[in-house]
Amino acid sequence: MRLVECVPNVSEGRDTAVLGRIVEAVSGTPGVELLDWSADPEYNRAVFTYVGDPEAAVVATQALCLEAFSRIDMRTHQGAHPRLGAVDVVPFVPLRGVENEEAVALAKRLGRWIGEQGVPVYYYEEAAEREERRSITDVRRGEYEGLEARLGTPEGTPDAGPATFNARSGASIVGVRFPLIAFNIDLATDDLEIARRIAKAVRSSGGGYRHVRAMGVALTEKGRVQVATDILQYEKTPIHRVLETVRSEAARHGVAVVGCELVGLAPLAAFEEVVRHYLQIHDFSVDQVVENRLLG
Amino acid sequence: MRLVECVPNVSEGRDTAVLGRIVEAVSGTPGVELLDWSADPEYNRAVFTYVGDPEAAVVATQALCLEAFSRIDMRTHQGAHPRLGAVDVVPFVPLRGVENEEAVALAKRLGRWIGEQGVPVYYYEEAAEREERRSITDVRRGEYEGLEARLGTPEGTPDAGPATFNARSGASIVGVRFPLIAFNIDLATDDLEIARRIAKAVRSSGGGYRHVRAMGVALTEKGRVQVATDILQYEKTPIHRVLETVRSEAARHGVAVVGCELVGLAPLAAFEEVVRHYLQIHDFSVDQVVENRLLG
Repeated sequence: MRLVECVPNVSEGRDTAVLGRIVEAVSGTPGVELLDWSADPEYNRAVFTYVGDPEAAVVATQALCLEAFSRIDMRTHQGAHPRLGAVDVVPFVPLRGVENEEAVALAKRLGRWIGEQGVPVYYYEEAAEREERRSITDVRRGEYEGLEARLGTPEGTPDAGPATFNARSGASIVGVRFPLIAFNIDLATDDLEIARRIAKAVRSSGGGYRHVRAMGVALTEKGRVQVATDILQYEKTPIHRVLETVRSEAARHGVAVVGCELVGLAPLAAFEEVVRHYLQIHDFSVDQVVENRLLG
Repeated sequence: MRLVECVPNVSEGRDTAVLGRIVEAVSGTPGVELLDWSADPEYNRAVFTYVGDPEAAVVATQALCLEAFSRIDMRTHQGAHPRLGAVDVVPFVPLRGVENEEAVALAKRLGRWIGEQGVPVYYYEEAAEREERRSITDVRRGEYEGLEARLGTPEGTPDAGPATFNARSGASIVGVRFPLIAFNIDLATDDLEIARRIAKAVRSSGGGYRHVRAMGVALTEKGRVQVATDILQYEKTPIHRVLETVRSEAARHGVAVVGCELVGLAPLAAFEEVVRHYLQIHDFSVDQVVENRLLG
């Protein structure tokens, strides 16, 4: 079974009737499983997480878009989170048996379709066609309120859809990103400086692992500190390598790792290299997991 | 999704037409996935491994029995492997969401059905009704050739089905066992004595882990030795604990673990405690694996 995850962010976090219609639209799509959804009234924004066959994931996302475009009016939208449109961001995440290129093609197919609905589209991250649109923060700069002016400039020309302002729906940002592993490592100390130093050592910007983001966090209630990491490409930097590097750096301060936390979900493939490493099963494959065989 | 594995051993290892019919019978059962099958002409015996919902697993096994009973004649059967009947052994293995008691009830339901086909049935391992029938070796003693005489004695009374000899089909042994993890650990030495000593230290009979069998094996081609283990209840003795004990015992001889091998398949749950241990994610659950969520 081939799997793509889709995690659209929609600019509605308060109206439960609208959210309910979106939930129905997604979970009513055959071959798609809605894993999670949550709405933030303060942000006035909701996030939906679903997985399915690539085709089914696109169909579910089109159904989500139709509901959002018809029920959300950006002219009256207010919320604390930056946004460009009703269907603000649609990231596709290749999870299983899907190459990056195929996921990008999928994202662009959805992008063209959104364009045909009269909504301008920008491609970001792995789907970006311009280097300056790679980062979502850059694409969203100026937000919905600045969109009309921006569309008239060369820098604002959309990658798909009309270059004319759609006052009701704004614009959508569509792209592909790798599955992110949120992995937090608690240390047996309350010295935040140690966590910060270690975070810097393992993260890309500090000269650490190329696909790792990290920061030191004080867990004041627990009286200890944490190295909070995001592993952006677990195939290139497996989970265990991040942990063992943090362990080694902590040891030089005489500090042990108390425990770790995996936030949310991870694909089975993220544990393949972990099992190979620690159990030393050099040729271990997730195909040796019964459940994996059942998914085909 | 609830899962039971069924691994029947059938007394036919040569006639590919018969084997083909059995394969069809099993893989044609809705809700059942045939993971593997192999035939040994020398043993004149075949093993089928399939998984499915408990109900579906019984239906597939009935279909297998009907083919075997109608196509195999024990009066002319010869082979190197000990056997009692045409459908020699049927072990059910609770893999996922199925308690031991339910698996035993399932085995006995199949046992009664086999009895209704006129074939005597003995229950073994977790389904045994007599302590002396727990071990399959004891149940199979005397083989098909001794069955007629045995059925006339109090020790030979079957647990289900007729106590009369069925010359064509013999008897069947039906039971429940835990999923077995076959895990082999290679050591950086050619000294077989070291592997044997370590095997003795970790296995139940040597005072080691209660649910572990182990032996020392010489891998002459590789020039090293191996501690070959069977972990019979990975929930009670997780894989990592066996490895770390072997590693510690080997270290006192100055010998390192070169690598390990997982033979065949294992359920996802067998890796839950491994991930908890090495990644120190104390509350890690297989529910955090995307693929597991899809199986429901």
